[in-house]
Amino acid sequence: MNTKKNGQENLKKMQKWIADNRKTWLEEYQTFLRFPSISSEPHYKQDVINCAQWLSDYLKEMNFEVELWKTNGHPVVFASNLRAGPDKPTLLIYNHYDVQPVDPIEEWISPPFEPQIRDGQVYARGAQDNKGQCFYVIQALKLLQDTTGSLPINIKLIIEGEEEHGSTALAELLPQKKKELKADYLAIVDLVLRRPHVPALTLGLRGLITLDVVVEGSATDLHSGCNGGIVPNPIHALIRLLGNMRDANGSITVPGFYDDVKDMSKEERSAVSFEFDEDEFHKQTGAFATGGETGFSPIERAWIRPTLEINGINGGYSGTGFKTVIPAKAIAKISCRLVPDQEPEKIKKLLKAYLEKNAPAGVKVKVTPHSGHGKPFRVSPNAALVKAFAKAFEEVFNHSCEFIYEGSTIPITVELSKVCGGETILFGLGLTTDQIHAPNEHFGLDRLEKGMLAVALGLLQLQISKN
Amino acid sequence: MNTKKNGQENLKKMQKWIADNRKTWLEEYQTFLRFPSISSEPHYKQDVINCAQWLSDYLKEMNFEVELWKTNGHPVVFASNLRAGPDKPTLLIYNHYDVQPVDPIEEWISPPFEPQIRDGQVYARGAQDNKGQCFYVIQALKLLQDTTGSLPINIKLIIEGEEEHGSTALAELLPQKKKELKADYLAIVDLVLRRPHVPALTLGLRGLITLDVVVEGSATDLHSGCNGGIVPNPIHALIRLLGNMRDANGSITVPGFYDDVKDMSKEERSAVSFEFDEDEFHKQTGAFATGGETGFSPIERAWIRPTLEINGINGGYSGTGFKTVIPAKAIAKISCRLVPDQEPEKIKKLLKAYLEKNAPAGVKVKVTPHSGHGKPFRVSPNAALVKAFAKAFEEVFNHSCEFIYEGSTIPITVELSKVCGGETILFGLGLTTDQIHAPNEHFGLDRLEKGMLAVALGLLQLQISKN
Repeated sequence: MNTKKNGQENLKKMQKWIADNRKTWLEEYQTFLRFPSISSEPHYKQDVINCAQWLSDYLKEMNFEVELWKTNGHPVVFASNLRAGPDKPTLLIYNHYDVQPVDPIEEWISPPFEPQIRDGQVYARGAQDNKGQCFYVIQALKLLQDTTGSLPINIKLIIEGEEEHGSTALAELLPQKKKELKADYLAIVDLVLRRPHVPALTLGLRGLITLDVVVEGSATDLHSGCNGGIVPNPIHALIRLLGNMRDANGSITVPGFYDDVKDMSKEERSAVSFEFDEDEFHKQTGAFATGGETGFSPIERAWIRPTLEINGINGGYSGTGFKTVIPAKAIAKISCRLVPDQEPEKIKKLLKAYLEKNAPAGVKVKVTPHSGHGKPFRVSPNAALVKAFAKAFEEVFNHSCEFIYEGSTIPITVELSKVCGGETILFGLGLTTDQIHAPNEHFGLDRLEKGMLAVALGLLQLQISKN
Repeated sequence: MNTKKNGQENLKKMQKWIADNRKTWLEEYQTFLRFPSISSEPHYKQDVINCAQWLSDYLKEMNFEVELWKTNGHPVVFASNLRAGPDKPTLLIYNHYDVQPVDPIEEWISPPFEPQIRDGQVYARGAQDNKGQCFYVIQALKLLQDTTGSLPINIKLIIEGEEEHGSTALAELLPQKKKELKADYLAIVDLVLRRPHVPALTLGLRGLITLDVVVEGSATDLHSGCNGGIVPNPIHALIRLLGNMRDANGSITVPGFYDDVKDMSKEERSAVSFEFDEDEFHKQTGAFATGGETGFSPIERAWIRPTLEINGINGGYSGTGFKTVIPAKAIAKISCRLVPDQEPEKIKKLLKAYLEKNAPAGVKVKVTPHSGHGKPFRVSPNAALVKAFAKAFEEVFNHSCEFIYEGSTIPITVELSKVCGGETILFGLGLTTDQIHAPNEHFGLDRLEKGMLAVALGLLQLQISKN
């Protein structure tokens, strides 16, 4: 009872801090969003660096020890405050400050790097993914320092700059930073809720691999009248090749693709809710739930089944009017989401071999797997860290916490968890309607505030549970 | 013998005129090429008009009666010189002054509308198709006027501005211009030779229809991690839909597509050479002859068999890096080349019905046939007009004339031939290596000169054959 009362008092104090400091944190959040830190486009390299530098300066102001780790790619921000002392636990928190590209730019209502607040939502690339989620973590720490004078446990922050580009640079760095990244707990804060009013912790992530396919038929574009019927059209060759990778039931036909897919245990299945409201989904996205493999429910298809998606295709002329051309080449970008125990590098090899082996007659097929990948990941619902944060979330939302999986990928999860050595938790206050990776990305200010509260209470809860 | 001697004397006189006036016609040719008269892109509307105006002024200078016919699209240049008198035959000659778009612009060695001469070839968009061919026709007339004081027969020129955009405007105009376009003969000068040293007349053209296909899956782009497996990916839906339109043998599976394809008569087949040098073709294009339907030779597939080609496809992200997106929509541009007796409007309906009927579950398929079309066309090898021009070509090339077909389309041929009411001939001095409809289009100055000679001699031959 005492704990509950303490919790409520804490909550009130925190809410007051948030209200009193609203103008400051809102301005700072928007400053963070103004950096066009697109990690996958070389053109934005300096903007990515500037964003890391701003974060570094911000955390130094908060009395954190800050290091900017150089990598082969974009820098990693590492910050720590270990003043709680060796008898207190240490929590490592992961976020990223890089963002997705902004195409199609013409569909943005306000420019992606000029944040605009409309109806309590902040619109900007990265508003949610992951600058918004990174920002409420930092504010939670600031709030605790301001209201209690110190942090209840030891904190390490790792904020990387290449999550949207495969986390390659950080993955390469991990072996050298084992000491720095050692902790009792790891929190990866880049996830979503399923419903705005229901708190959720994520117990599973899918893995990811990506690759480019180029089909070349001729040295130059050819006239489709003179040559149509003589030459193989690279677009036809590409769509035949890619089309054959899925059968009529949506199953992936690449030999060996499903070999290592492991069934869920009873314990795993009972902890998770596979509910799915098709009408609500259609209302939110305009899409019907007709994708993926037959024989599985929509949420099973998104959480516990692997996929193969063409994320981009391009060949020939697709502007206004018409051009009767047979293009010299056609290209596609493919990704697979993976589930335990599929190995990313093994799946890359399977796909490359399949595509090269099945190259249609008369064309060249070049397959280039991208170097980054993400492994699939699962968390036990019984971990102490899961229980502590579930409690914190329930207090903030005044609603029981649900356990979910996530169809997407945080590439670094598996390796980072290994290097940290402690229990791992995955959460976040995104919603699937936030349009991350799409035009008009946004994040609700209500969720930004709840994020500050939940993280702060989670830290207090961890302090208690350790004692 | 006398005719042959006359022919040789005429040829010498003509060659002298060409040499003496080289500087002038070469400058004028390049002026013609500098107009970016791209008919399919609204942005170039005024340039198309300027080009028509320049042609009109040029022909007036040559004492032609000139009319600029207004249409719903780009203007048609109509010019006549009937001073040979009513006892002489009248030849209507068709060309077009519009050109194809220039994408991909970055692959041009010199800018497409700044003609450059390299190794005897003039590089520019339209250098061959069709400004080059139009220009040698006009110079042949000028040459005859300059060297003999008059034209041997009555001449009408029709030079349209929308051939690369389906000839819709001219097709609409034809019923109102029956009187003006009436003639004994029609020459359509927009064709190719198969080998640079062998003259050729074209006895067959394929028809053409074009259409756009749009597949929509959601209201906005979606994240392929969160939604992959739940939603149908419009790219997958599009490639499945289009992929199923051809079977493994390259045959088109759309019901009814081949119903009206007529076998060639023995007479037609014996007049035409279906020879094809696969090695030479590969050397020229970098492509292998593995396209189209099995069971037919490469040239049969290009000349007497219909095709279905995807000329453009686009969906999702295909820039540098990677974007894990499921796009809201994907599009394709499709064309069919048709052979006798396929009816373009009937084939459009078949395709639209097929695509709409086979729309994959959960996506919307929108099919928009373009309004223009070209009907397939055949000429008898025994026509008097064919014989006259075969003779003229043999004199210029000093080589026997071959009869060929053409895989591409001149949309207006059938209707124009009907309105003209006379025998029709199809020829031209293009080569398949001229890169028409592709970057670095070019035309040989040797062929430009041969074109002037062949047209001039053809006119003299027609004067004789009528008498």
